Amino acid sequence: MPLNFTILPPPAALAIALRQKIDQKTKPLRALGQLEALALQIGLIQQTLTPTLNAPHIIVFAGDHGLVAAGVSLYPASVTAQMVANFINGGAAINVFARQHGIGLVIVDAGVNGDLSAYPDLIQAKIGNGTQNCLTQAAMSADECHAALRKGAELVMARHAQGCNCIGFGEMGIGNSASASLLMHSLTGLPLADCVGRGTGLDDTQLSHKTAVLQDVLARHQQPSAGLPLEVLATFGGFEIAMMTGAYLQAAELGMVIMVDGFIASAALLVAAHCYPAVLDYCIFSHVSNERGHRAMLEHFNATALLQLDMRLGEGSGIAIAYPLLQSAVLFLNEMATFAEAGVESAL
Amino acid sequence: MPLNFTILPPPAALAIALRQKIDQKTKPLRALGQLEALALQIGLIQQTLTPTLNAPHIIVFAGDHGLVAAGVSLYPASVTAQMVANFINGGAAINVFARQHGIGLVIVDAGVNGDLSAYPDLIQAKIGNGTQNCLTQAAMSADECHAALRKGAELVMARHAQGCNCIGFGEMGIGNSASASLLMHSLTGLPLADCVGRGTGLDDTQLSHKTAVLQDVLARHQQPSAGLPLEVLATFGGFEIAMMTGAYLQAAELGMVIMVDGFIASAALLVAAHCYPAVLDYCIFSHVSNERGHRAMLEHFNATALLQLDMRLGEGSGIAIAYPLLQSAVLFLNEMATFAEAGVESAL
Repeated sequence: MPLNFTILPPPAALAIALRQKIDQKTKPLRALGQLEALALQIGLIQQTLTPTLNAPHIIVFAGDHGLVAAGVSLYPASVTAQMVANFINGGAAINVFARQHGIGLVIVDAGVNGDLSAYPDLIQAKIGNGTQNCLTQAAMSADECHAALRKGAELVMARHAQGCNCIGFGEMGIGNSASASLLMHSLTGLPLADCVGRGTGLDDTQLSHKTAVLQDVLARHQQPSAGLPLEVLATFGGFEIAMMTGAYLQAAELGMVIMVDGFIASAALLVAAHCYPAVLDYCIFSHVSNERGHRAMLEHFNATALLQLDMRLGEGSGIAIAYPLLQSAVLFLNEMATFAEAGVESAL
Repeated sequence: MPLNFTILPPPAALAIALRQKIDQKTKPLRALGQLEALALQIGLIQQTLTPTLNAPHIIVFAGDHGLVAAGVSLYPASVTAQMVANFINGGAAINVFARQHGIGLVIVDAGVNGDLSAYPDLIQAKIGNGTQNCLTQAAMSADECHAALRKGAELVMARHAQGCNCIGFGEMGIGNSASASLLMHSLTGLPLADCVGRGTGLDDTQLSHKTAVLQDVLARHQQPSAGLPLEVLATFGGFEIAMMTGAYLQAAELGMVIMVDGFIASAALLVAAHCYPAVLDYCIFSHVSNERGHRAMLEHFNATALLQLDMRLGEGSGIAIAYPLLQSAVLFLNEMATFAEAGVESAL
């Protein structure tokens, strides 16, 4: 069952007028650096000289991973469900940062291994009680994978219908950096070791073990072709990752400004971009971490992240922290005086 | 006339309790990276486990430079006064970003060459109509320098008296990157060429001319000793730079959180740190630009900036853009749940 999105690059014609508007503001040429690039990109995505960010949202997808049984994380799998409860109760980092910036927060049970039906504020979208262990079989079936993609897309459509034009995706899932590494290796062709990192804080020995486990995983599967990204996703992905992939695609089709979080969120985007490369035109990369592989993945996207603050948390935390910079870009474009308006002389 | 501040490093004993509080939050150890370092520093400055940022302010000091006659800037000197009017009318970048984040903005005529008495919202603190041209004489007299230092200190005291505990300093002054380069060279001993940059956008030829002018300046003065920072300041500085120096010292004495802007703001801090090294313990560096010399100056301070967004505007713009990160640091420390509170298991 092929995906059916229509994702085109935003028409570029408006770039000249946007650049002129930026250059007439009372500041030396290019003096706002990456904020100017942001203003240009957001203006192009929205096809307007006066862009706005309306009802920004972060959707956090949570899911468990069968591979955790092989010992690839520092934390027990039970922490996924516990952290979902923490999100719902408002006590996690992403809650704090989303509140700070007025970003709506939506938490989704994409496939947590545990009964979370008691939480009315949690979006119940469980595809399964965690994925299968990909040491022995594909993490999910093709049907499960498509169900997850569709659900991610649906959730974005619902936010968009309520006026949201700026969205980002976070994740929670013990073991999901291992899944992201497998996706990255399979889709970029980079050596596995360059795609595997310390996750929540593995030491050297634990990192070696994680890498060895992932080598075993790769050995037990007919390596799916990078030309079949959804097969790669079903074999190695997670339910939360697959939902993110669907969410990116839907957000791009709807012409939304998309904020990209960390390593795992970028791996989900990698799958999306292998299906529809133009999705990347809608993406703003919030934060680059020290997780091995993240920087290489951004290079693969030919992207630069706004922030590098040594964070490695997931949850959409990088997005929330970077969001004020998007606001700044839109605000300077709309509110700053021009040289003519302010009666300020230009360069000699 | 020696300066008379009492500036001591914040007592370090609380660091252990702050670190423990940070480590008990529901996140992997160190997963909030530089935000954790910020929370620790702000907690130490305020000597509390529950720091707050109250009534944050940016004071923008404006002044003109006699050296501009030698052609060291891309813009005519008249732009300083024009931009002050733009600040007062709310049309500059710093106005936009300060409004965005609820940061109080104070504009000071430290020594603009022009009559700005018609602006009631401008703080009238003119030391002179621009500095003297330091190609022929010291930029200012020792008395003028001290008057500027005192005024900067006074303005900080006034904000502090009104409940402000977090402050940063911006500047506007055509030609002041040349002044900052001379201060940097004199106080760090780094080669002049490593301290001179493109300012608002000089091309290679213009940059060579600027460097040659500054070499002439240095040749015409008995090189003041780095051990006499206020003499260096009077010889090469600007009125806005001297006021910033006094402002830093007063803010540190009052135990305020100090936000440091770009290259010129850092040069003013360099003078302050040569008088009282402990001033640096109160400083948070907001943004590192591509202005030649800025990175080396931060290395001299043994400091890392929060942001690097290719901005080069001054005005306190880097501070305003970085301020939400300080807020995030304080908020996660105060609001995030602990592992125990949230019932989340720790690492295996």
